[in-house]
Amino acid sequence: MERIDAYPFYVEPFHVDFTGRIFLGVLGNHLLNAAGNHSQKRGWGIGALNETKHTWVLSRLSIEMMEMPRQYEHCEVRTWVESVMKLFTNRNFAILSAEGKPLGYARSVWAMIDMETRKPCDLLTLYDGDILRYIVPEEENVCPIEGHGRFRFREPKLIRTIDTYYSDVDINGHINSIKYIEHILDLFPRHRFEQGGIRRFEIAYKSESYLGDRLSFYEQVISDKETDIEVRKNEGDVVCQAKVCFK
Amino acid sequence: MERIDAYPFYVEPFHVDFTGRIFLGVLGNHLLNAAGNHSQKRGWGIGALNETKHTWVLSRLSIEMMEMPRQYEHCEVRTWVESVMKLFTNRNFAILSAEGKPLGYARSVWAMIDMETRKPCDLLTLYDGDILRYIVPEEENVCPIEGHGRFRFREPKLIRTIDTYYSDVDINGHINSIKYIEHILDLFPRHRFEQGGIRRFEIAYKSESYLGDRLSFYEQVISDKETDIEVRKNEGDVVCQAKVCFK
Repeated sequence: MERIDAYPFYVEPFHVDFTGRIFLGVLGNHLLNAAGNHSQKRGWGIGALNETKHTWVLSRLSIEMMEMPRQYEHCEVRTWVESVMKLFTNRNFAILSAEGKPLGYARSVWAMIDMETRKPCDLLTLYDGDILRYIVPEEENVCPIEGHGRFRFREPKLIRTIDTYYSDVDINGHINSIKYIEHILDLFPRHRFEQGGIRRFEIAYKSESYLGDRLSFYEQVISDKETDIEVRKNEGDVVCQAKVCFK
Repeated sequence: MERIDAYPFYVEPFHVDFTGRIFLGVLGNHLLNAAGNHSQKRGWGIGALNETKHTWVLSRLSIEMMEMPRQYEHCEVRTWVESVMKLFTNRNFAILSAEGKPLGYARSVWAMIDMETRKPCDLLTLYDGDILRYIVPEEENVCPIEGHGRFRFREPKLIRTIDTYYSDVDINGHINSIKYIEHILDLFPRHRFEQGGIRRFEIAYKSESYLGDRLSFYEQVISDKETDIEVRKNEGDVVCQAKVCFK
């Protein structure tokens, strides 16, 4: 089987923002679907894993877009495994237009956990290390964007607190990874999206939150184009951290 | 061209709720896409209409489900025109499983407006009444669910007020029709969805709201299975009214 998969998507009318470009959360959803399909087809997807009581957990996601797909565009996500360590694997993405022009790239980090113990598994030995066979050779690993940065929050400012509801929650009862992206972007006023939109978005998932948890959003302004956000639940644990860079 | 269209959809992992069934908002989105495609292909879609400065406006939507599609299911929406009056058209839907089993049905009412004057157009004469050619004969109009009901609110109780943000808004700058469905279902506690989910959902769109509007949700309990919700903006105009019936 090929190492790189192509996952086509179409930019639906209700999936674009007021500028006519795809919502970053919807794009993120396409990336996660592409990743899911890629591992599914190779035998280490969620379905296969559940039988052995393992599941993938997304730890980091960084997306950088030169151009956001527009309403009615037919696009494609390509995804592949960049590298595998004992407890983590790096998966990269390219987002292409119908003509094959790169519109952006993304990087992600995943762990696999045992669903009962919630402990991470050794990826190098799981399924006899089958995943290692799919690491792409260096020349095919074309993902010319920066790696995941480190977050350092120093007295960030609380800017919003929200309750979580039915629509926020996925099949596991967790607030879903994409919903955090939506809630984070909802912190920014209209004019930030009118001036060219988002150039880069990074998110680090730290802990799970659940239906009914209160989420507090803390802001740390890095520059006029760049803001870091920390999300905490119920005035306590950090749930995720994100960096939003506008054009 | 056929009168009835089939629009396939797949139930993605992030599109299901904590019970593993598709979110009603996501299903609604598929219905609207199916409707859009149906009119597009026949020459009276949004794209074609924009050239003549007309657009479709959804006025009513009622969905009734015997069974909500589950994660990873391949399903199909069928849609057709039931009838056309001067200012409104009735469009119906069937939602089918991969095996062709009916999972539910929906009814909708649409008007066409002139985008400059915001006034409704005469559907009987627009495009020389082309839409009339697509009204299905009675025997093909299989949609065995109740018509849209009438709402009567008598001192409903204010139960939540929310601000609207970036993710709520569509390409026209309006709060999108699907987001209202999500916000309305978010009013209900977890256990309401655990007991079999939603049987019927009706919504009547009354006026537009915009990014930054405050939406207030008023509740009128009809019975232990049935609740009416009225949404008002900025403590004033009614934006929409909905009926939620649980199993």
